[in-house]
Amino acid sequence: MNFIEIIGFVAAFLTTAAFLPQVYKTWKTKDVSALSLPMLLMFFTGVFIWLVYGFYKESPSMIMANAITLVSAFFLIYFKIKYTKNI
Amino acid sequence: MNFIEIIGFVAAFLTTAAFLPQVYKTWKTKDVSALSLPMLLMFFTGVFIWLVYGFYKESPSMIMANAITLVSAFFLIYFKIKYTKNI
Repeated sequence: MNFIEIIGFVAAFLTTAAFLPQVYKTWKTKDVSALSLPMLLMFFTGVFIWLVYGFYKESPSMIMANAITLVSAFFLIYFKIKYTKNI
Repeated sequence: MNFIEIIGFVAAFLTTAAFLPQVYKTWKTKDVSALSLPMLLMFFTGVFIWLVYGFYKESPSMIMANAITLVSAFFLIYFKIKYTKNI
């Protein structure tokens, strides 16, 4: 693995790790009032396109980071829909 | 501009645009209780390293997206410190 990809993986670790507590908090508290569905969908779509971009660029760190963030964003959308209906 | 960079700019627009309402909301409500300073600092550092990675990869879309997000993250850190002190 080259130097640039090591930098990429450090960045990937930091940005994905910073996002996970939000998913955990939403899961535990079921409080989705602060989350906006259109924004989540926009973010999810954007991350998906970054993932495609990562494949084109043949960037392992971008692919990993965006794949994990895509799953996180998916869970937030799922929680938003699920817990909004229950109110 | 090639096809891959167009994809990158679409992704950049979506992910940065999804982040801006959070900054606006925090600015207006001054409610920083949901924001975690260690997480914000981790995210800020990660985005900064992605920016460096974008320069190495010579990716205009990554440079733009991470530069804007870096500014957004900076404002959230500033608000968090400023409005936490006032309580």
